[in-house]
Amino acid sequence: MSGRALTFLCALICISQPGRLAAASPPNVIIMLMDDMGWGDLGVLGQPSKETPNLDAMAAQGMLLPNFYTANPLCSPSRAALLTGRLPVRNGFYTTNGHARNAYTPQEIVGGISQDEILLPLMLKKKGYVSKIVGKWHLGHRAQYLPLKNGFDEWFGAPNCHFGPYNNSGRPNIPVYHNSEMVGRYYEEFSINRKTGESNLTQIYLQEGLDFINQQSLAQRPFFLYWAPDATHAPVYASRRFLGKSQRGRYGDAVMELDNSVGQILSRLRTLGIENSTFVFFTSDNGAALMSGPSESGSNGPFLCGKETTYEGGMREPAIAWWPGHITAGTVNFQLSSVMDLYTTSLSLAGISPPDDRALDGLDLTPVLLNSSHVLHHRPIFYYRGNELMAVRLGQYKAHYWTWTNSLDELKKGVNFCPGQEVAGVTTHEQKEHTLQPLIFHLGRDPGEKFPISVLTKEYQDVLSRISPIVDHHKKTLVAGIPQLNMCDVAVMNWAPAGCEKLGKCLKVPTSSPWKCKWPH
Amino acid sequence: MSGRALTFLCALICISQPGRLAAASPPNVIIMLMDDMGWGDLGVLGQPSKETPNLDAMAAQGMLLPNFYTANPLCSPSRAALLTGRLPVRNGFYTTNGHARNAYTPQEIVGGISQDEILLPLMLKKKGYVSKIVGKWHLGHRAQYLPLKNGFDEWFGAPNCHFGPYNNSGRPNIPVYHNSEMVGRYYEEFSINRKTGESNLTQIYLQEGLDFINQQSLAQRPFFLYWAPDATHAPVYASRRFLGKSQRGRYGDAVMELDNSVGQILSRLRTLGIENSTFVFFTSDNGAALMSGPSESGSNGPFLCGKETTYEGGMREPAIAWWPGHITAGTVNFQLSSVMDLYTTSLSLAGISPPDDRALDGLDLTPVLLNSSHVLHHRPIFYYRGNELMAVRLGQYKAHYWTWTNSLDELKKGVNFCPGQEVAGVTTHEQKEHTLQPLIFHLGRDPGEKFPISVLTKEYQDVLSRISPIVDHHKKTLVAGIPQLNMCDVAVMNWAPAGCEKLGKCLKVPTSSPWKCKWPH
Repeated sequence: MSGRALTFLCALICISQPGRLAAASPPNVIIMLMDDMGWGDLGVLGQPSKETPNLDAMAAQGMLLPNFYTANPLCSPSRAALLTGRLPVRNGFYTTNGHARNAYTPQEIVGGISQDEILLPLMLKKKGYVSKIVGKWHLGHRAQYLPLKNGFDEWFGAPNCHFGPYNNSGRPNIPVYHNSEMVGRYYEEFSINRKTGESNLTQIYLQEGLDFINQQSLAQRPFFLYWAPDATHAPVYASRRFLGKSQRGRYGDAVMELDNSVGQILSRLRTLGIENSTFVFFTSDNGAALMSGPSESGSNGPFLCGKETTYEGGMREPAIAWWPGHITAGTVNFQLSSVMDLYTTSLSLAGISPPDDRALDGLDLTPVLLNSSHVLHHRPIFYYRGNELMAVRLGQYKAHYWTWTNSLDELKKGVNFCPGQEVAGVTTHEQKEHTLQPLIFHLGRDPGEKFPISVLTKEYQDVLSRISPIVDHHKKTLVAGIPQLNMCDVAVMNWAPAGCEKLGKCLKVPTSSPWKCKWPH
Repeated sequence: MSGRALTFLCALICISQPGRLAAASPPNVIIMLMDDMGWGDLGVLGQPSKETPNLDAMAAQGMLLPNFYTANPLCSPSRAALLTGRLPVRNGFYTTNGHARNAYTPQEIVGGISQDEILLPLMLKKKGYVSKIVGKWHLGHRAQYLPLKNGFDEWFGAPNCHFGPYNNSGRPNIPVYHNSEMVGRYYEEFSINRKTGESNLTQIYLQEGLDFINQQSLAQRPFFLYWAPDATHAPVYASRRFLGKSQRGRYGDAVMELDNSVGQILSRLRTLGIENSTFVFFTSDNGAALMSGPSESGSNGPFLCGKETTYEGGMREPAIAWWPGHITAGTVNFQLSSVMDLYTTSLSLAGISPPDDRALDGLDLTPVLLNSSHVLHHRPIFYYRGNELMAVRLGQYKAHYWTWTNSLDELKKGVNFCPGQEVAGVTTHEQKEHTLQPLIFHLGRDPGEKFPISVLTKEYQDVLSRISPIVDHHKKTLVAGIPQLNMCDVAVMNWAPAGCEKLGKCLKVPTSSPWKCKWPH
């Protein structure tokens, strides 16, 4: 072998660090993030109406992760965690306006994702990835916070939830963006019929995803597709072809359409012959929104409560990893894992070292995904509500340091995060502190968190003695980020997004009058 | 064609009546009936700890029936319904000692299955089937009520629940029978360790099943195996090899062992080359016994309450039909179906006409099983508690005419049929009548029965107008059987079962002193 060949070989080996994963070209990455879809909404996870043949097949061809968690029981912080690999309390997606309050990014929010955060698509650029987000952004709607300012090359979707319709006087309808300019607004150019539930938005989002995959495949560029449709978030919608097709009403119709879309995306990867070089992960941003039930909410299966809460129903998510030829088909792995792991794992798959100047909460799941018997032990799951660590899971045990559903005041108004569920001393309507003696559950025997383990048992004391130091260490070493979700102002709403001039859709911006946002939950 | 050939052809056609099913030799029938296993206990139906790879594979190779029901939320009446094809209120497995009370066959029960009933194995004899029951009988433990008096050729198991241990003075331990003679007693020759949960009974029952299959296969006789192990009924037990292996504690260990046994039975059919000539059905006798939770109870998934109740958690059962080459693999059929259909369907498969001198509640499911797109519409499901029709399901709608969980008196004693669940006006602690204005739920949108449909809606009125005539007709035409579960007597307990002399295990029979049994639930 000549010296030159040797050098070349060495270069190859060096490039292939860190590890065998990057030996071949780094795989494409597709993260499919659903909105308010619950753990129990998939057929393979027990939905009685079995609306998800494509997702069930995806699980049969890949790996099911029944112990996968979001980082927060609400959409914006959950999404910020996914794209930063960090807990919302670190990346700033929380509020200090009240204790243990869930905050997000409605139109009047002033803040957004901090410039100090390094989002996944920006990191992936190091290896030449082209990145697109399709659907809901939710990390701030003001110009400086938008996707193309944060590493994405393309975007089709909206910055906020599709609430409305508004009359554009007191509150503008939400804009839909194509890259960095608006191309219309929900309920205007992008119709959602609140009465019938009809909208073809999922079909648009599907097509945007498929076109991107086609283009990058043709160009032979590695890509990252963050596919985040919002059809299962109230107001729930589906295309005409799916409306009335499920046994569950509008919500089930939306699930059917999303499942069909997932099937089409996977099928496209096969058609293009890139299924073995594309890592796909399916999950949801938080538990099903039980307060919207029964016609606009999903199912959290056997778990307690839902969205907005730190019970299992609020934070355990459906999760399927799919990568033919790499992930063994039909496997189930009980690894405690998190949406934040998707950041670290994607970087690992791409052969990119994660940022070393900050605390990351995500783990690299590749050993688990590529060797299904592998388990990363002693990995805790932290359940936050705003600025408070409400609970911690370690192995099968979960300790609640604070419990809260929603206040009696809200309950009187008809807001109920746990309809039909009432566990004495657990589903408390006031914020209840248990820090000196946490409520501890064994989630294997008792996934529904109905039977706290008696404090008088050896089991309780053993568990507490193992969890306490982890909690202490976490709290002592945590450096909280600057809270981004404290201030509101009508002037920052989507009155005149970039591109509005071309469309003649700019609205008059009212005078700025900031206030501290109120977060009731 | 010669006249003789024509006659032969005609004979073939005639023999092949009633239909193509009996054209070949009639298939063997295996009914696997679990004890207190809940709908949500199977991986394929959403159990987070996924302990059932064999049952999940059975579903993937066969048909899953998510809308399959038992005929009663308690063991004895449910089992009587399975073997007679008739509602317990018809076959006598109920009580009139109180309103809407669940009754069963404890040791002190005087009654048992009526001589007027024609059980499935007796019917199957017409086509030369050899029948065996393995496990729990529960249709009366006095000599005249036992399996071999009711059409079964063989039995290995016990007549009652495996409660105990008793000291044999005030109450004898339950005998285990081999055919018509006892071969020992639970907690004596057949050990169950209440402290560790260890017992090898499931292994014994598995071996009994396998041996029977082998023998009949070798003899080329059609067979009916009624495999009814009771490991998931409290006190829950498992073999040493399975203890501690699940994430759910003892209950999950028992599920794992039963799942493993199912796998072995199906595998044996394949080894013997009779998988294409053996119809196998897996289900359970009633919902998970939530009052035994968390360590000795299963899961009813997203459904309300459990065993003893007429909410979905009490009566919707896991159900898988398996028959390679006949039932299309990996199908899901939403047919409303019942344990009583197993009677009628088994007869249809065997080419035997069902009894025509009595009302049968079972339907012939073969069109559904053999043509997965087929659905028998307008088939109601009746939910009884003892002598009262509590609720009726028609299509996606369920109307509750009476609601009851368990009494406040019982609740104070710690008995709770709906732990952690409380739906105002639905999970009532007193027997509440709604006959004039039933509570109506849409089980598609609301499988957890949390959101009654408003009586002011057109939907409610439409549904009621469709369900009412069905209920009226059912009540008007129902001929109730003589209640068999009214009288109790210590003298009838298992003091001296047949065969006790040989073993030296006869106990002294106390003086008869009958009383009206009390059924608190």
